[in-house]
Amino acid sequence: MYQDNPLKSISWADYQKLPVTDRATYFCRNGHPYHALFAQQYDRPAMERFCDLATRVRKIAKTRGGMRFLQDLLAEKRAMLYFSQPSTRTFLSFSAACQIVGMQTGEVRDTATSSEIKGETQEDSVRTFSSYFDLLIMRHPVGGFAERIAWLLSNTERPVPVINAGSGKDQHPSQALLDIYTLQRSFEQRGGIDGKSIAFVGDLARGRTVRSLACLLRHYDGVKAYFVAPDALQIGADILQVLDEANMDYEVTDDFASVIPEVDAIYMTRIQDEWDQAQESSSVDTSHYHFTVADLDRLKDDAIIMHPLPRRAEIEPDVDRDPRAMYWRQVRNGMWIRAALILNIFERDGEVDRYYQDLMR
Amino acid sequence: MYQDNPLKSISWADYQKLPVTDRATYFCRNGHPYHALFAQQYDRPAMERFCDLATRVRKIAKTRGGMRFLQDLLAEKRAMLYFSQPSTRTFLSFSAACQIVGMQTGEVRDTATSSEIKGETQEDSVRTFSSYFDLLIMRHPVGGFAERIAWLLSNTERPVPVINAGSGKDQHPSQALLDIYTLQRSFEQRGGIDGKSIAFVGDLARGRTVRSLACLLRHYDGVKAYFVAPDALQIGADILQVLDEANMDYEVTDDFASVIPEVDAIYMTRIQDEWDQAQESSSVDTSHYHFTVADLDRLKDDAIIMHPLPRRAEIEPDVDRDPRAMYWRQVRNGMWIRAALILNIFERDGEVDRYYQDLMR
Amino acid sequence: MYQDNPLKSISWADYQKLPVTDRATYFCRNGHPYHALFAQQYDRPAMERFCDLATRVRKIAKTRGGMRFLQDLLAEKRAMLYFSQPSTRTFLSFSAACQIVGMQTGEVRDTATSSEIKGETQEDSVRTFSSYFDLLIMRHPVGGFAERIAWLLSNTERPVPVINAGSGKDQHPSQALLDIYTLQRSFEQRGGIDGKSIAFVGDLARGRTVRSLACLLRHYDGVKAYFVAPDALQIGADILQVLDEANMDYEVTDDFASVIPEVDAIYMTRIQDEWDQAQESSSVDTSHYHFTVADLDRLKDDAIIMHPLPRRAEIEPDVDRDPRAMYWRQVRNGMWIRAALILNIFERDGEVDRYYQDLMR
Repeated sequence: MYQDNPLKSISWADYQKLPVTDRATYFCRNGHPYHALFAQQYDRPAMERFCDLATRVRKIAKTRGGMRFLQDLLAEKRAMLYFSQPSTRTFLSFSAACQIVGMQTGEVRDTATSSEIKGETQEDSVRTFSSYFDLLIMRHPVGGFAERIAWLLSNTERPVPVINAGSGKDQHPSQALLDIYTLQRSFEQRGGIDGKSIAFVGDLARGRTVRSLACLLRHYDGVKAYFVAPDALQIGADILQVLDEANMDYEVTDDFASVIPEVDAIYMTRIQDEWDQAQESSSVDTSHYHFTVADLDRLKDDAIIMHPLPRRAEIEPDVDRDPRAMYWRQVRNGMWIRAALILNIFERDGEVDRYYQDLMR
Repeated sequence: MYQDNPLKSISWADYQKLPVTDRATYFCRNGHPYHALFAQQYDRPAMERFCDLATRVRKIAKTRGGMRFLQDLLAEKRAMLYFSQPSTRTFLSFSAACQIVGMQTGEVRDTATSSEIKGETQEDSVRTFSSYFDLLIMRHPVGGFAERIAWLLSNTERPVPVINAGSGKDQHPSQALLDIYTLQRSFEQRGGIDGKSIAFVGDLARGRTVRSLACLLRHYDGVKAYFVAPDALQIGADILQVLDEANMDYEVTDDFASVIPEVDAIYMTRIQDEWDQAQESSSVDTSHYHFTVADLDRLKDDAIIMHPLPRRAEIEPDVDRDPRAMYWRQVRNGMWIRAALILNIFERDGEVDRYYQDLMR
Repeated sequence: MYQDNPLKSISWADYQKLPVTDRATYFCRNGHPYHALFAQQYDRPAMERFCDLATRVRKIAKTRGGMRFLQDLLAEKRAMLYFSQPSTRTFLSFSAACQIVGMQTGEVRDTATSSEIKGETQEDSVRTFSSYFDLLIMRHPVGGFAERIAWLLSNTERPVPVINAGSGKDQHPSQALLDIYTLQRSFEQRGGIDGKSIAFVGDLARGRTVRSLACLLRHYDGVKAYFVAPDALQIGADILQVLDEANMDYEVTDDFASVIPEVDAIYMTRIQDEWDQAQESSSVDTSHYHFTVADLDRLKDDAIIMHPLPRRAEIEPDVDRDPRAMYWRQVRNGMWIRAALILNIFERDGEVDRYYQDLMR
C-alpha cells in the first residue's frame, strides 16, 4: 500500500504544488508511515494497525511487568516536544505516551526564551534543537509548518521523524486517530465502525477535529454522518465534497432533538469563538446544541457521547456519570493511540505483538 | 487503626459538614492512608511508619545498587505535579522524591497556559490532566481545593491518590511530616520526641508550618511548646484550644532571650508580610526574634535549630556552620519523607523493609 | 598534573585575589577536575581525555545495547539545571547529555518563581535547590557566580560539583571544549589540531567563545590564528598577550578575502549587538565578514567552517549543504563532549573505556 518515496526526493516548491492527497506517499520510509503530518495520510489498514497496537499496549500496561516491558521499547530514544502554541492537554498526552514507551523527552514551550530573539530563523532553531533528539513532536500556530520542518530535516544528514501535534486550523492527526480509536473500541462488540451513524454537533465550521474525523470515516463502509449546527457554524462545503466523492451518506440539519434517537455516536464540540470574525457565535443561540441529562432518555442504549474537550456548557456535568459518556475515556485513548503511533514510527510493533501473544497464551 | 471508608461513600455536601478530625477516615484504602490532605489526618503510628521508612530509604540510597533498587519500586507509575501556585523548593523536593522511587513525572505549573482560558472548569482541567497519571501532587491557592479534587476523582471510574502540597493558608501536610522527621531523627539517640521542649519563634499567627506541627506534637508524650512572638503575630487561639484538649503543656511569651537556654529545639520562622492586612509586621520590631551567633553560647549543647526556609534575617548566616543548625539537613529530610509518603500510598513499604533487612544482616 | 587541593581550604577573599591561572588547582578532587568553571582550567591531557571519551560515548551510543549501557552509568545521580539566564540550546544540550548517561534532571529556569521574591539570598536559594541533586549545571548573568557557588558548597557538609554553563561575558567552558572537540574530530586523519591555521571572523571583541577557544589553542603545537574583524570589533589585547606569552603565532587583519584560502578552519561568529554601548555594530559595514556560497570555491578542500550558532547573515544558508560546513555537527559534538565532561567528573571513564575496548575487539 505504501511506497518508499521520502521527502528528500522532491523540492519544497514542487511539494507545495501537490494536492494534499498526493503528499502522503512522501512521508513513508521502509514501506510505512515515518512522519505523521495530517489525518488524511492514513488509510484504513494504517488506522486498524494503530487501533490494534493501542489496545495491546493498553492491556500490557495493566501489570507492573508489562509496564517495564513497554518502557524498555524505546528507552534509547529521545523526543523533543516543541510547542510554540500552548496546549497543556495535548502536551501531557504526548509526554505520557513517550513515558509509556520509555522515551526520554525534552521540551521547548515558550519560544520567546529560545535564541530566535537573537535573529535566528525558525528553521535554524528547530534544526538545532532537533540535533539532540530522535523524534520531533511539534505544535505550531502556522499551518504547514510541521510539513516544512519534515521536508527540511529530510534534506539533512540527520533526518528525524516529525509528528504534527496541531498546526494552524486544520491539521491535528493524532486527535483524529484517537477519535477513530474511541469509536472502534466502543463498537468492538458490534462489528466496529462500519454501518454506524454519527452526529457531529456544535461548531462544525471551525472545529478541526470534526473536519478531520469526518474525512477519515469515509474509509469505513456504510457510515452515515449527521452535521448538526446553526447555519453560521455548519460544516464546510469542502468536507461535503470529499464525502460526496467517497459516496458517503450524510445529512445537514439544525434540528438536534430529532437526531439524538437516530445515532450510534454523538460528537459534541465547543463553540470556538476565539476565531470569530463577525460575531458568528454571539449572533446565534447555541443552547439548542447542548446535551443535557434529559436527553439521555432519548439516546440509544448502546450509543456513546464523545467530546474532544475542553467543554463549556455543551454537556451538562451530570451526564458524566452515565456509562454512555465516553469523553473521559476518550482522553486516555489519546495517550494509548499516541504511544501506538510512536511505536509504529520506530517499527517496534513486532516486539509488542510478540509480548502480547505470549500474554494471551 | 484505620478503616476502609473511601470518599466515594459520602456526598460532597455531607463531607464538608464534617469536623476536620472526622474527615481522615475517608482518605483510607485497604486500611491505610491513600490521600494525603492535611497534617491532622495522621496519628502517631502513621508518623512513626513514615519516619522509619524515610530512614530506610535514606540509608538504602547511599549505594549505587540501593538507588537502583529504589528506582525500580514505582517505575511503572507516573505522578503529576500540579502547581498552580509557584513554589520551586516544594516542587523540586517532590520531584526529587518521585525520581528516588523511580516515578516519572509531568507538570502543570502555569495554569494560565492550560485550557482553562477556553472556559473549562478547574475540575474538568484537573480531571483531564489526571487521566494521564497515577498520582496527583497539587499546590493551590484555595484552601480545600485538594480535598475537593480527591473527592471528585474518587467518584470517577479512575480514582487517583491526591497529595496536598500546600493549599490556602493552613494545609501543607508533607511540611509538617518533614518537621516531625527532623525532630525524630535529631533526637533518635535521646528517646525521640517524647519529653522534649520546642520553641516556635517569629510569625506564629500566619505560618502554616508552625500551626500544623504544633498540632502533631500533641500525639507525643510530655512535649512542651513555647510560642515566642510579639502579640500581633502570636499563635491563634484555635491551636491553643487543640493543645488544651490534648492536655499538652505550653507557654505563650514575647521573651525570646529567656527561652533559648530552656529548649531542645528552636523552630524559627519568617515574618510573612505578604499576608499583612493592617501593617501588622512593620508596626512591630521583629529583630528581637532573630537568632544570632551570640545566641549559640546560650543554647543547650544538644539542642537543634530548625527553619522551614526561605529565611531572611531571622538566622544570621554564620550560624549555619554550627552543628546544631539543622535547617539545611531539614531540607533533605523533606525529600526523604516525601519518598516515604509516596511509597506508603502505593503500599510498597514491604519491599523496602525486606531490602533493608537484607542490607542490615 | 593535578593536585588535590579543594576549594574548602581557602577563604573566599583569598581565592578572589588569585590570578585565574592559579585557581584551577582548587577545582580538583582525587587528582582530577571536579568543578568545571572556566576553559583555562584545562590543560592538553585533560582536553584529550574529554575528546577521547566523547568519541567513545558517541560510538557506543550507536546501538540500542550501547545506549542502555550508557544510561546505566549515572542512573543513581540527579543533576539540577539552574538557568537564571535563558538559553534553550545550551539547556537542551546539557539535558540531552544527562539523559545519555542516565542522569535524571530537575530544572530552575525562571528564577522569578523561586522564593527569592520572599527575600531569600541567591546563595540560600541555590544551596536549598542543590540539596536535592548531585550535580549543579548553572548559567547566570553575573560573572564569577558559578565560582562563588562552587566555593560555597565546598564549605558545607554536602559538596556538589558545579558546571558553569555560561556566566557573564567570559566563561562558558563546555562551549570551548566542544569547539576543541570539533577541530580534533575534523582533523583526526590529519594529525589533529597541531600545525593547523584557524581564522576567527566577525565580532571578536565580545564573543566569549572565540576568546576562550583562542586561549585553549595555545596548548597545541604550531597553531596559527587569524583574527579577522573590523577595528571596532577586533580581539582584545588581553587575549593577544596570553598568546604572546605562549609564543603562539597569529595575525590581526580586516581582510577576510585574503585569509579564506590560507586556513584549515574558519570560525564564523555573530555580531553581538546586544552588548552595544556606542553603536559599535551599526557604524561598521559587517557584510564583508560574511561567508557566502561563492567563497566555497576559494576554501581549501579539507578545510572546515564552524559557527557557535545562532547565526544571522554571517553564513548563507546554501553553504549548509557543503560537506565542509561543520556547524551542525558542532551542535551534536556539544552534547557528546558534555556527556564526557559529566562522566569524568563522576569518575566513570573507566567503565566507558572497558565497554569500548570490548566493542572494538
